[in-house]
Amino acid sequence: MAGLIKGNAVVAQSGGPTAVINQSLVGVVEGLRGNPAIGAIYGARHGVRGMVDEQFLDLTKTPQDTLDAVAATPSAALGSSRDKPDAAYCERIVAALKKRDIRYFFYIGGNDSSDTCRIVHEMANNSGYELHAFHVPKTIDNDLMENDHTPGFASAARFVAMAFMGDNLDNKALPGIKINVVMGRHAGFLTAASALLRERDDDGPHIICLPEVPFVADQFFDTVAEVYARHKRCLIAVSEGIQNKDGIPVLQFIGGPQETDAHGNVRLSGTGALGDTMAKMITAKLTKPGGKPPRVRADTLGYAQRYWPDASPVDAQEARAVGRKAAAEALSGVLSGSIAIKRIGGPGSGRPSEPYKAELSRVELTSVAAKTRHLPHEFIKGDYDVSKDFVDWLRPLVGPMPRIGRL
Amino acid sequence: MAGLIKGNAVVAQSGGPTAVINQSLVGVVEGLRGNPAIGAIYGARHGVRGMVDEQFLDLTKTPQDTLDAVAATPSAALGSSRDKPDAAYCERIVAALKKRDIRYFFYIGGNDSSDTCRIVHEMANNSGYELHAFHVPKTIDNDLMENDHTPGFASAARFVAMAFMGDNLDNKALPGIKINVVMGRHAGFLTAASALLRERDDDGPHIICLPEVPFVADQFFDTVAEVYARHKRCLIAVSEGIQNKDGIPVLQFIGGPQETDAHGNVRLSGTGALGDTMAKMITAKLTKPGGKPPRVRADTLGYAQRYWPDASPVDAQEARAVGRKAAAEALSGVLSGSIAIKRIGGPGSGRPSEPYKAELSRVELTSVAAKTRHLPHEFIKGDYDVSKDFVDWLRPLVGPMPRIGRL
Repeated sequence: MAGLIKGNAVVAQSGGPTAVINQSLVGVVEGLRGNPAIGAIYGARHGVRGMVDEQFLDLTKTPQDTLDAVAATPSAALGSSRDKPDAAYCERIVAALKKRDIRYFFYIGGNDSSDTCRIVHEMANNSGYELHAFHVPKTIDNDLMENDHTPGFASAARFVAMAFMGDNLDNKALPGIKINVVMGRHAGFLTAASALLRERDDDGPHIICLPEVPFVADQFFDTVAEVYARHKRCLIAVSEGIQNKDGIPVLQFIGGPQETDAHGNVRLSGTGALGDTMAKMITAKLTKPGGKPPRVRADTLGYAQRYWPDASPVDAQEARAVGRKAAAEALSGVLSGSIAIKRIGGPGSGRPSEPYKAELSRVELTSVAAKTRHLPHEFIKGDYDVSKDFVDWLRPLVGPMPRIGRL
Repeated sequence: MAGLIKGNAVVAQSGGPTAVINQSLVGVVEGLRGNPAIGAIYGARHGVRGMVDEQFLDLTKTPQDTLDAVAATPSAALGSSRDKPDAAYCERIVAALKKRDIRYFFYIGGNDSSDTCRIVHEMANNSGYELHAFHVPKTIDNDLMENDHTPGFASAARFVAMAFMGDNLDNKALPGIKINVVMGRHAGFLTAASALLRERDDDGPHIICLPEVPFVADQFFDTVAEVYARHKRCLIAVSEGIQNKDGIPVLQFIGGPQETDAHGNVRLSGTGALGDTMAKMITAKLTKPGGKPPRVRADTLGYAQRYWPDASPVDAQEARAVGRKAAAEALSGVLSGSIAIKRIGGPGSGRPSEPYKAELSRVELTSVAAKTRHLPHEFIKGDYDVSKDFVDWLRPLVGPMPRIGRL
């Protein structure tokens, strides 16, 4: 520990909250506590926004039982932020760090947060201010490079798998065509999780539309008609991020209502527009002239995917460990990095016959920052399904699942 | 038991499935088994539809472990139906009963099912065919007369309460205006459940729109603006059944898209239209000229409210008991009736200081059939809230809930 700079620490949370992002927050605090290099431990309110506005909570002496309760609570206890800082904003962050003698900066978030971490780190150190800057991974989309999976994903996948298990039985009881829209703007991992609890040939989802597979409208409607003719019902998992081969979001070219967010992206969550528009088009396509329209319904699984207060135990444990590991890396003298979860045992590792096991390792910020991981080819089966390899890979992550009893 | 007619029995499930409707199915089967008056025990597929189409499963010897697994599985294991039989349809049901020498008929469903039960019972007995006909209550809406609460409601309320708990924290982390649309066409019990896990003054839902309180658009928008100014955020629970003082559904008079179902009712579930339309109107009303619009999002909690595979333990136990009680009543020689849950201990009973306790009693079919129970006045507080009495009444029904940890 010789030469480790003494100073204060700050931790902040960014982007869409998850069921376990507070585990990582608590992991960072636990990992820092008691080390002689660390003075105060601050929590910045609402991510980088709280840093420039100097909105801090002092977590140095927060009792362990409070930390444990917060860790087990979904959403971001410090508050979160959608701000994507530019250079001027990052300079203000560095100034705020210097003002409070903060030498250890931990930012829990997705790939944008990792990029912010990288820029702040470079600015500080280029100005001669030694700053340890660590990114702590978090995203339900599971779209971070270098990671087998990211904290937050498994709990969201658990919610999605349970939703499709229940809705498959509901759709079987009252047959019709049902669409469920799933989160994940660029990566299809969460939509793919809809397949986890299928057991029988006629179990849904019968059609899975991933953002990685270009959406072809006519082919899709034909496939719906085919499944509906075969099973008298059809359960469809649709990623909010589905697009055609030119990268145009489906809502845009099938003529649904569109709104854009602050960054100019078509708004995908917090609206039922995609599901409703697809439902209308399916109804129109599948109604024979003079015939009775099929029963078509759409649900958008919505924010519950990220806030549902029933986290996967594996996810909770890993999210905590990732926070601790980031603190440990910084306290070992490393100046920057992100923490990645590598699978070293079980399906999807080099040792598929062993039980699931993961290890954490430090990776460079540049290898995560502003990059997007997609569902790999071997997890995709045809145009509308996922592979058994994907299901095997996912199963150990989600925790105990309800069983299906049938007559 | 002298004089109890010997014959076969049939059980069927109707309407929207719930997380515990299979408990009632299994309860009926368990209650009938081993009684010398009972021959075969049939399950009709898809409610009354399976009776007229002669689609039966033989449940006489289904192993207990299968029954237990089915009981713990959401949705209707026999399949359900939305058919509302007219007189001719009921005559076909009676003919099907006679054909198989079925003397015991159990119909699990809401108030429409209870009415079908009544008509079938009268037709059969008026034709000289002795038929024991029992309605077994089921509805997440909790809108059946005579009942303190109905099987299915508490599990759906558990889902809604957990959703609002999580979304309140999400909305606090990333502030904005958030609408969640909740099921319940005529009764506000489920929407009211959104308030269960509020702990602090600034916890949402901040506004609760019930179908029992006439919706006044301008007053609503003013209230949203007021809450948003006070808390910089606003979480809103909206019943899908909200209407103005003339009984016109809100979607109709605020100009949203409307579709009607087979019965000519405006379609409320399986679409995000109500939430999306309200979100657009709030955005328009709250955006100052030249100003930045507030962040407004809407989720429709959707079918997950009825299929979520994490039932309330109290609900599961009561749903099973209600099925057994119906069988016991029929086997005690009673010709018809419905089973009602009466609260005899705990908040909302005559003995509020005692622990929660309920008892089951037989009531007349006519006292339940085709009637609707609404949220009582004492459970409503002002125009946009529920009372403490409601929360106290609900709490014992939903089972253990996640705790909220805060910094």
